[in-house]
Amino acid sequence: MKILVLNCGSSSIKYKLFNMDTKEVMAQGGIEKIGLKGSFLKLTLPNGDKVMLEGEILEHTAGIEYILGVLVSEKYGCIKSLDEINAVGHRVVHGGEKFNKSVLITDQVIEKIVECIDIAPLHNPPNLKGIRAVSELMPNAPQIAVFDTAFHQTMPDYAYMYGIPYQLYKKYGIRRYGFHGTSHRYVSKRVCDFLGISQEGQRIITCHIGNGGSVAAIKDGKSMDTSMGFTPVEGLLMGTRAGDIDAGVVSYIMDKEMIGTSSISTLLNKHSGVLGVSGISSDMRELEAAYEAGNERAILAEEMYFYRIKKYIGAYAAALGGVDIIVFTGGVGENQASCRSGACRGLEFMGISLNEELNNKVRGEEVIISKPDSKVKVLIIPTDEEFMIASDTMEILKGE
Amino acid sequence: MKILVLNCGSSSIKYKLFNMDTKEVMAQGGIEKIGLKGSFLKLTLPNGDKVMLEGEILEHTAGIEYILGVLVSEKYGCIKSLDEINAVGHRVVHGGEKFNKSVLITDQVIEKIVECIDIAPLHNPPNLKGIRAVSELMPNAPQIAVFDTAFHQTMPDYAYMYGIPYQLYKKYGIRRYGFHGTSHRYVSKRVCDFLGISQEGQRIITCHIGNGGSVAAIKDGKSMDTSMGFTPVEGLLMGTRAGDIDAGVVSYIMDKEMIGTSSISTLLNKHSGVLGVSGISSDMRELEAAYEAGNERAILAEEMYFYRIKKYIGAYAAALGGVDIIVFTGGVGENQASCRSGACRGLEFMGISLNEELNNKVRGEEVIISKPDSKVKVLIIPTDEEFMIASDTMEILKGE
Repeated sequence: MKILVLNCGSSSIKYKLFNMDTKEVMAQGGIEKIGLKGSFLKLTLPNGDKVMLEGEILEHTAGIEYILGVLVSEKYGCIKSLDEINAVGHRVVHGGEKFNKSVLITDQVIEKIVECIDIAPLHNPPNLKGIRAVSELMPNAPQIAVFDTAFHQTMPDYAYMYGIPYQLYKKYGIRRYGFHGTSHRYVSKRVCDFLGISQEGQRIITCHIGNGGSVAAIKDGKSMDTSMGFTPVEGLLMGTRAGDIDAGVVSYIMDKEMIGTSSISTLLNKHSGVLGVSGISSDMRELEAAYEAGNERAILAEEMYFYRIKKYIGAYAAALGGVDIIVFTGGVGENQASCRSGACRGLEFMGISLNEELNNKVRGEEVIISKPDSKVKVLIIPTDEEFMIASDTMEILKGE
Repeated sequence: MKILVLNCGSSSIKYKLFNMDTKEVMAQGGIEKIGLKGSFLKLTLPNGDKVMLEGEILEHTAGIEYILGVLVSEKYGCIKSLDEINAVGHRVVHGGEKFNKSVLITDQVIEKIVECIDIAPLHNPPNLKGIRAVSELMPNAPQIAVFDTAFHQTMPDYAYMYGIPYQLYKKYGIRRYGFHGTSHRYVSKRVCDFLGISQEGQRIITCHIGNGGSVAAIKDGKSMDTSMGFTPVEGLLMGTRAGDIDAGVVSYIMDKEMIGTSSISTLLNKHSGVLGVSGISSDMRELEAAYEAGNERAILAEEMYFYRIKKYIGAYAAALGGVDIIVFTGGVGENQASCRSGACRGLEFMGISLNEELNNKVRGEEVIISKPDSKVKVLIIPTDEEFMIASDTMEILKGE
């Protein structure tokens, strides 16, 4: 069974074609700068080489048509005909309270995704464009939607409600939804497979740390709390997002700088985080270099970054009544030893004891980085959201 | 030595006269509705009876004059002359980064308190009115300022900085300051006296839970982190304040409801918290009654209330590298057994084991409520901010 996974952003489309019989990635790449000057398609060949194909790609249908063309092309392709693709799985950011799992896309489903645009104005529209383009280009292929929010729908109300007038929840659906659900679900399941244990009874804290980042508290395989909220700005310090902040600061900055809601939103989403604090970069690799060079604000940004993860680990251990497993994933979580070490430092009282030497050596692989006698197992589990989307797609196809 | 303690709000003045030789309260009371219709002075007589004296009190000087008049009056007074009062201690809300301890008030100090008005526009002006009124009415009495924020000035930068562009900190002083400092300082010191131990080496989490509420992480007697931030809206769910909330929610509500910064600030400070969630009351006693009666939203509000305290206990235990002592104080913390129990539930993994039976019986007294074998000691320590202000005042006078 061959499944194409699509992740459509406002000016980009990422794709991966899986052969689910062998679990292999047959093709992968992405289009960037859709509708902008200099749009291009970049793909990774089976041998690892990268190819860049320029082209004027004005909108999403043209983009997907381009991708499909490359997939069947003689030079860079891997299939003879689009009919070989059994189904298409889409990453859809926001399913609101309407979706607690992945679903086969029908007209009714599309309607509900449209209804969620109000709470995800930047993300759901390009997701929908991708779905419509595939309907047009591959009218016979079943499409499946996999939501970033769905996994977190098991949170109890006391964890997802905000302390604001209740009618604002009823009227606008303002509550914690959480994101990165597909990643938290994947690594929390995968870690149990890796350890050869059942998810039942396990209290797991998953730290998805990338340019964006979130922590989730998971019990019996179910999300109980997560640090991103109504929007992805809440929680950890991120590359360019502020994370947790006093609501009073939001209105204070607006007053002082005489800016409106759209500008404050841009400030908190695009100019904050480690970039805003350090003034150097949103990229933790560049920050790490400045840290090593003794740059004071880089040191501050890193310390804030680690400290916030540590506080969430403590808070979620309390929420879960203890913790059995901690997972680090995402670009930073998988690759930056100092982040994992900084986040776990001082948590020996909770039964967390990191093997620092091993932690310093490993990156991007499935590995236990806690000491053998650590009560809490700490692991790196590289995330694979696309594979999870392909798996869900396959499961749903089989169930139909 | 007799010390008068004043806490001047925008329309209220609270006072307490201490005899510091005997540590007794000689007189106490307060004025309410200053400048409003129906203003009055209410005082508690030594026998516990309350007396209400009506009067048109248009501004703070008139209010303090009224208080001083009552203190020397034949009917309700306790001193013969104002000269018996050795000094006046003022609660001042915001000392910014300018004050890390209590100080004798000089012209220079007043100037600095004025400079902090920008970050405490609602609180510092009435505090200053009180100071100026006393200067006028008791020109010879030394005055001391005790700041709500001072105790938290020991926080490390990674705990007090927000993840916003660094220049907003430099330009406007936007950072976590924390409040309730006098209370956190008092109970964290008092608990060690009570247990007969030194503050050195102790990791203490103090939960000041009242209509407003904050949690502090204290190590070696120094504040390392606290849940209130730049403003008192951050942190716990409170009577009418929202506490922690996604910054994206703030601008979302503003857009949807078409309101400005002043309205959103009122919404998050006055109409949120347990009042907003439950729709019933901001008073935990009334909420408790509705909870008992099975009201769903009262149950939700209580669960959120306890859950947030629990998460902060977990987060601050992580921040401190473990916890030795947890203190509950403030109106709710001292009196509501279900709050203490709810906040500590499930924290056995951290060495917290509450004596539930005892906890249910006690209120408003200094008492250990954890089991004898609990690794972490949990206590109720009734707060006494006024006594702390009087103590600071006396110490500074003696040091002069």
